Amino acid sequence: MQTIGHFINGEMQVDTSRTQPVYNPATGEASKQVSLGGARTIDEAVAAAKAAFPEWRKTPPQRRARIMFKFKQLLEENADEICRLIGEEHGKISHDAAGELQRGIENVEYACGAPELLKGEHSRDVGRDIDSWSEFHPLGVVAGITPFNFPVMVPLWMFPMAIVCGNTFVLKPSERDPSSTLFIAKLLKEAGLPDGVLNVVNGGKEAVDAILEHKDVQAVSFVGSTPIAEYIYSAATANGKRCQALGGAKNHAIVMPDADLDNVVNSLLGAAFGSSGERCMALSVAVAVGDEIADRMIAALQEAMAGLRLGNHADKTNDFGPLITAEHKAKVVGHIQSAARQGAKILVDGSDAAPAGYENGFFVGATLIDGVTRDMDSYQAEIFGPVLQVIRVQTMEEAMQLINDHEYGNGTCIYTRDGEAARYFTDNIQVGMVGVNIPLPVPVAYQSFGGWKRSLFGDLFMYGPDGVRFFTRRKTITQRWPSATLREGSQFSMPTL
Amino acid sequence: MQTIGHFINGEMQVDTSRTQPVYNPATGEASKQVSLGGARTIDEAVAAAKAAFPEWRKTPPQRRARIMFKFKQLLEENADEICRLIGEEHGKISHDAAGELQRGIENVEYACGAPELLKGEHSRDVGRDIDSWSEFHPLGVVAGITPFNFPVMVPLWMFPMAIVCGNTFVLKPSERDPSSTLFIAKLLKEAGLPDGVLNVVNGGKEAVDAILEHKDVQAVSFVGSTPIAEYIYSAATANGKRCQALGGAKNHAIVMPDADLDNVVNSLLGAAFGSSGERCMALSVAVAVGDEIADRMIAALQEAMAGLRLGNHADKTNDFGPLITAEHKAKVVGHIQSAARQGAKILVDGSDAAPAGYENGFFVGATLIDGVTRDMDSYQAEIFGPVLQVIRVQTMEEAMQLINDHEYGNGTCIYTRDGEAARYFTDNIQVGMVGVNIPLPVPVAYQSFGGWKRSLFGDLFMYGPDGVRFFTRRKTITQRWPSATLREGSQFSMPTL
Amino acid sequence: MQTIGHFINGEMQVDTSRTQPVYNPATGEASKQVSLGGARTIDEAVAAAKAAFPEWRKTPPQRRARIMFKFKQLLEENADEICRLIGEEHGKISHDAAGELQRGIENVEYACGAPELLKGEHSRDVGRDIDSWSEFHPLGVVAGITPFNFPVMVPLWMFPMAIVCGNTFVLKPSERDPSSTLFIAKLLKEAGLPDGVLNVVNGGKEAVDAILEHKDVQAVSFVGSTPIAEYIYSAATANGKRCQALGGAKNHAIVMPDADLDNVVNSLLGAAFGSSGERCMALSVAVAVGDEIADRMIAALQEAMAGLRLGNHADKTNDFGPLITAEHKAKVVGHIQSAARQGAKILVDGSDAAPAGYENGFFVGATLIDGVTRDMDSYQAEIFGPVLQVIRVQTMEEAMQLINDHEYGNGTCIYTRDGEAARYFTDNIQVGMVGVNIPLPVPVAYQSFGGWKRSLFGDLFMYGPDGVRFFTRRKTITQRWPSATLREGSQFSMPTL
Amino acid sequence: MQTIGHFINGEMQVDTSRTQPVYNPATGEASKQVSLGGARTIDEAVAAAKAAFPEWRKTPPQRRARIMFKFKQLLEENADEICRLIGEEHGKISHDAAGELQRGIENVEYACGAPELLKGEHSRDVGRDIDSWSEFHPLGVVAGITPFNFPVMVPLWMFPMAIVCGNTFVLKPSERDPSSTLFIAKLLKEAGLPDGVLNVVNGGKEAVDAILEHKDVQAVSFVGSTPIAEYIYSAATANGKRCQALGGAKNHAIVMPDADLDNVVNSLLGAAFGSSGERCMALSVAVAVGDEIADRMIAALQEAMAGLRLGNHADKTNDFGPLITAEHKAKVVGHIQSAARQGAKILVDGSDAAPAGYENGFFVGATLIDGVTRDMDSYQAEIFGPVLQVIRVQTMEEAMQLINDHEYGNGTCIYTRDGEAARYFTDNIQVGMVGVNIPLPVPVAYQSFGGWKRSLFGDLFMYGPDGVRFFTRRKTITQRWPSATLREGSQFSMPTL
Repeated sequence: MQTIGHFINGEMQVDTSRTQPVYNPATGEASKQVSLGGARTIDEAVAAAKAAFPEWRKTPPQRRARIMFKFKQLLEENADEICRLIGEEHGKISHDAAGELQRGIENVEYACGAPELLKGEHSRDVGRDIDSWSEFHPLGVVAGITPFNFPVMVPLWMFPMAIVCGNTFVLKPSERDPSSTLFIAKLLKEAGLPDGVLNVVNGGKEAVDAILEHKDVQAVSFVGSTPIAEYIYSAATANGKRCQALGGAKNHAIVMPDADLDNVVNSLLGAAFGSSGERCMALSVAVAVGDEIADRMIAALQEAMAGLRLGNHADKTNDFGPLITAEHKAKVVGHIQSAARQGAKILVDGSDAAPAGYENGFFVGATLIDGVTRDMDSYQAEIFGPVLQVIRVQTMEEAMQLINDHEYGNGTCIYTRDGEAARYFTDNIQVGMVGVNIPLPVPVAYQSFGGWKRSLFGDLFMYGPDGVRFFTRRKTITQRWPSATLREGSQFSMPTL
Repeated sequence: MQTIGHFINGEMQVDTSRTQPVYNPATGEASKQVSLGGARTIDEAVAAAKAAFPEWRKTPPQRRARIMFKFKQLLEENADEICRLIGEEHGKISHDAAGELQRGIENVEYACGAPELLKGEHSRDVGRDIDSWSEFHPLGVVAGITPFNFPVMVPLWMFPMAIVCGNTFVLKPSERDPSSTLFIAKLLKEAGLPDGVLNVVNGGKEAVDAILEHKDVQAVSFVGSTPIAEYIYSAATANGKRCQALGGAKNHAIVMPDADLDNVVNSLLGAAFGSSGERCMALSVAVAVGDEIADRMIAALQEAMAGLRLGNHADKTNDFGPLITAEHKAKVVGHIQSAARQGAKILVDGSDAAPAGYENGFFVGATLIDGVTRDMDSYQAEIFGPVLQVIRVQTMEEAMQLINDHEYGNGTCIYTRDGEAARYFTDNIQVGMVGVNIPLPVPVAYQSFGGWKRSLFGDLFMYGPDGVRFFTRRKTITQRWPSATLREGSQFSMPTL
Repeated sequence: MQTIGHFINGEMQVDTSRTQPVYNPATGEASKQVSLGGARTIDEAVAAAKAAFPEWRKTPPQRRARIMFKFKQLLEENADEICRLIGEEHGKISHDAAGELQRGIENVEYACGAPELLKGEHSRDVGRDIDSWSEFHPLGVVAGITPFNFPVMVPLWMFPMAIVCGNTFVLKPSERDPSSTLFIAKLLKEAGLPDGVLNVVNGGKEAVDAILEHKDVQAVSFVGSTPIAEYIYSAATANGKRCQALGGAKNHAIVMPDADLDNVVNSLLGAAFGSSGERCMALSVAVAVGDEIADRMIAALQEAMAGLRLGNHADKTNDFGPLITAEHKAKVVGHIQSAARQGAKILVDGSDAAPAGYENGFFVGATLIDGVTRDMDSYQAEIFGPVLQVIRVQTMEEAMQLINDHEYGNGTCIYTRDGEAARYFTDNIQVGMVGVNIPLPVPVAYQSFGGWKRSLFGDLFMYGPDGVRFFTRRKTITQRWPSATLREGSQFSMPTL
Repeated sequence: MQTIGHFINGEMQVDTSRTQPVYNPATGEASKQVSLGGARTIDEAVAAAKAAFPEWRKTPPQRRARIMFKFKQLLEENADEICRLIGEEHGKISHDAAGELQRGIENVEYACGAPELLKGEHSRDVGRDIDSWSEFHPLGVVAGITPFNFPVMVPLWMFPMAIVCGNTFVLKPSERDPSSTLFIAKLLKEAGLPDGVLNVVNGGKEAVDAILEHKDVQAVSFVGSTPIAEYIYSAATANGKRCQALGGAKNHAIVMPDADLDNVVNSLLGAAFGSSGERCMALSVAVAVGDEIADRMIAALQEAMAGLRLGNHADKTNDFGPLITAEHKAKVVGHIQSAARQGAKILVDGSDAAPAGYENGFFVGATLIDGVTRDMDSYQAEIFGPVLQVIRVQTMEEAMQLINDHEYGNGTCIYTRDGEAARYFTDNIQVGMVGVNIPLPVPVAYQSFGGWKRSLFGDLFMYGPDGVRFFTRRKTITQRWPSATLREGSQFSMPTL
């Protein structure tokens, strides 16, 4: 059985002392296992990163960026292999893995602009012949902790930017599907990254805590569920680190009476069921304004859902694949049952939908639930499965109130043609990423990603301009050259230049 | 006896249930007392701020900025009164209070640029006919907790920027010298600020904790000592808030053999003894490279120090005034004694320096200590008094190592004519604010203020561009208008625009 | 009779050798005359500006900005007097003059942000230990030539920004209504501007040509008609200067079938007839899509126009005033007659509309013309009078084609509720300033003003961020400090850092 | 004999009706000829570019940028062939051609950041519920005219940026050495650029004039000599186009008494003689402050110059190669003779320096002239050959005066260790690109390139941030959505939002 190890200081380290199986979720079989690193492994990785920092810091940004140019090329050349590794361990269909990879590559492309992004602000003559400017320095060793659902994209949200900013990096990816993450780490070495600048340690809570407590780790970037995000943020900051911790979501779409229904249905199918709903930007609640549009939308959804194909990652004709684990499947099915118990109507039930030949896989089919209300447990929770719940309201205000009252504020969308409705919505909704007729409004790599309320802890979003700021610290220099003949009176007052 | 109250929802509230005396540190007399607010007072202030938020948020930035234009004018017109209030309660000489005020006004000037500073980033055609842009929204109710040493300037670092960004504010200033802070708060109302947008609550730890725990406070900005900063950062973030907490300092100047000695001596006098050294940017350690420059510098300093005048705030011929409290005076004197005990040479001792007629004031005179070493307690601690310690080293590297090893990293300075030395210093020193031939490198209001290491907890500096980012949250909108005839296939992959 | 002179080096200079009458257009009387400066006057003004430049250049931007803070205050305190002067010589009603002034003040407010706006771009480590940064230096002596229609606002688009950037300025305002311009120039001196930094020379073509040919004038900023703009651009650039020359306009509104008709009518009245249509952003063509909306719009406009009041500037109940000269009135009336001759329907004819008591004034009343076609002379020309022409088309594409085919591309607007229509319009229309439901989309002072096609010659818009760039030149510094022991091989190749 | 044609709409077009020989300057032989296009060829190229514009404009910036990513890769993979083509027709040694190419590639790298660089400025709530933002649109068809001395780098300064901004391009490279330029144009097609987006027309003055007069060409970017730059600027702008025209140079280095002489000599050799001095940034005048440093510098230069190797491009041990033409060689030799006649001392004379086997090549060897004065013709003119002239002065002020008095202001440098001298120099020198201890201060691709005085006509520098602005035009949109119930009074005053 293959053991997946750690990538430290440019070398793979396989440690079989503590391991955990890695499943193929489509078959339910575990043909690999992953080493679980602990405090000692984290120590090694941080030490390697710390040792690499002084030289990496002094490598000009443009040279750092050139490694990212090469990395992009290698990611593209190795796309099939990357998607295969994602598919085998996560289960997502190859076209979806390709989308994930492409979104990740966009962050590499953005990181290639480091020389522009790292420019400081230069103020000539802040006082007579006194100049002052700010520089953006790297922090040192920084860490990322990433979730199973995007084993390639979310790491690429973090380490390319951190690294082009001059930091060295320790990444703890999800132990559920680590192979693709390790593969791209090795590609970055092949692209020319010096050893020690990027290190990957697999592991669970012990590794996480070791990162949070390590005195040489300056910052932690996290994506996961809200309870863990809150824990990470609290622990990292209590240890004096800077931290950005992205948590859960419950993303609603408001479907207005004037919405383009074809667009609604087509785009909702992908947004709700794509990647089995295991996306923090998945659209899991459709709020229909008025029964007329609700009824038409539901009819159209039901018809379209009948044509969806569930199955193995390698078959591109499939629409989506299994969930990540048997436990998670049970949780999702439990939410469907709970909704039914609490009075909702299960219009399409995917609880028992495993395709032929994959009976042991962790499949749940596309599920549609009508008559959902705000007090139901299935509404309050983040299900993270292919379940679309419909809520019916009478007014747009009512729809917005629902969203603003929810604890999460990650993504949302409005379907309308009306300029005024869209503007009112975008201005007043308490959500960080807002779509107008776009149900998955993931910001492009040159904007930044983040939610409001309990979907994000910290003050800076992830990747894009905020990512640059998160992975740098400001140094402000004020400079004046005295002339040989300078004679000045002492100044006891607060100097005002 | 006058009781200084709170300023909530545009009204002064005097509460005599719990109070604390406010001293004139030059005379040692307490002729005023201050109300100490607790959780209930904070609740009231936060409630007022919360009620004012919806309308203030929707006030266009340009209109918000115009109130700051007027505020600047009022601050200038009332400068004498503000300086008098500072002087009476803090003790700093009027010219120094004027400097403090001027530095504060610079932050108001910067806030006047809100329409420019709040611009979002607009990306046309992130995909075909899809636009995306980021907006910077206010957070809601935010809070500031400020120290005694700059009762006007540090509050002005925070609330003008927070307020022009659309937030409403609760300020807890130092209970040692609250009058000038309250006075400027009332000026801002006079400038046109709606009631409830700025609230000031006096108090001690109970008020602080009430802020940290209040669920409606979105962010906390703090300036004070490192232990408290660490506590604030840890508690605020554990409660899910964003936080920036600025702590203590131990600012070193390296005096190179080629330094312009006149400039060194003249500027060090003000930087070390101005405001009695009660500044987080005070220059308290001079590191001389080589005995030759050390000896010449010390001789010149001793001569110059003989001419310094200590006394009451109202007399502009005084160079600096008393310390803030009797307790603090005792602490500073204790540091001088400790240095002597541990082997340093007290060349000038200001322990017993009260000017005639002010024998009960909390005065300590300018103090110069030679032969200080890194293991002495007086070197490790932030003294916050008019004490300049000299350390002698043989090389610039040795001097830089001292600084980089110190737990604080707020400000520092090098005195030299040599371009290479200056550049090497600024690049490699682990300090956030760096001066070249400028011993108090406080960044101008259009740069940002902050230290490294244990001098700042958080990821954004205070005021300037970082201040804007701290007091706003990003919202990213992605927009596409479907045509009536739009017909698209569903997309199950991760969309890549 | 009062003679209006020049303002050179901080002093008024009255020269009666060549003069021209200044009319009150409401009465048709000339009670003042203006000195017409020639090459010698321009020489004097440029010499004063050149002499003031070295010291002004070295004044820190923050200090320069503080004069603008004071200037804003003085403009506000003297608003009534400024509006009176505008009204007496230009004729616009006091509420309109107040609007003009307010828009001008916004540019002063923007200029107050100079320290932020002048920040250069700092790149650390462009090569190993090599830094490079760009600074934005003033040009030296720069000039502005401004039109009669905004004697206060357009000068304020130019000189505050030019001056805070460190330039010194020579302004040649319109000789039709120079008093308000001179008045504000004197206020700026009162605000603390050193003599010679701003100079105002009145005159006609001789003065203009003297500016264009003067070797010490580095840049020319112009607003006027297209033929003159083209001449200015061509002559200034042939003399090696940088130049931005803003010309004429023919601004269309597309009225879509779903437009909010109340909003259309209310906003069009002001946009078409305000200031008698003498604005380069006046909305002079309404393109109705479909006869249904055309008929309703015209009916509503006719009704509303019946209530408009014409008269003297001092009476705030008036809606608009006279045209600038008798010649211009004749030209506008000629355009109305030409439209009639070429087949259009004059629904409301203001040719003969002088209010009682002002029979000698240069009044033309609000005029509405239906049935206009693209080949009519009145459609091709910029009328610059209170004349609104209606064109009827069947589709939005047809409406857009009209606009894109017109030689001018200054402003335009679409009235609709439809998000898609608005986005398609803003993306594809060949116009620089575009409104959605806003017929006068004059950019705010923190954006920039300019048209496309033959409405602007040059590459930078006026005021706002582009204004900063226009009035500065870049200097890029690349710096490396050699160590004493540096030993390098010679490098004969193109160095790549 | 090979005929080098045009590259229009993705196809090579060979036209032998008018041609001119292309020489190998090392041998003096012409084995190729180049088609000389005229107005008709330009018409075709512009027509192709115009036809390609609508679709290219609508291609999202990120997709445009991805073609540049691929282009960079192809340039690197084909580096040897590109350098060979440069060497054969220009004569520069392969290591120098590689440096040129690398500098060009840096501009491609910068263009890859288009999505970031094209961000507009978004202002929410410029008035209540009114938004305004600026977008940066492409101009349409734009043109570049480039010189012989950098047949790859200077075109790469222009077209990658113009193209990623959404423009389509017509390039007229130098007819002296067109092959490498055409080669990279074809590589860009291979990288995925649609036909017609980049077109290359060879030719002389007729082609240039056709570009300047073509109504569909929106902007012209030029690099060449000052008389031509002035002509181009004047003609392009007279035709209403935007234009940036970079001209000649006379770049001085000030050698201060404290300069690091090894660094001076090593870096001056490359800066003065590299590429035979045929660079607009070549350092051609060394101004020594004091005879002591002058004598030492000259002695060291003479010794080092003895080791320089002249020869064919393919031999990497050569330091530099021939001049571009026989005519140019005669001109350079004429300047040396003129200096001698006017009293200078020719310390090293390279007039007759052709290496063995290359007697017919256009070689001039490294030449050193002492005793140059400001009135000599050789000092006033841009020699553009391997000639370093030394001027001796007594003070730094005298040295700076020389530079500030010269008509050109492209590049300059100071050699010193002194921070104050460097700062005084960079602040007060009238030159656009300033080096401190760097004699060829060519800005990196993420800053911008340009001179002051008669070295640049226009207001924006080339490439970098200014390049983005030059190749885009601003469109400012102001948007407000009326509610159905909106009822407002008409507004006749200048609206102030």
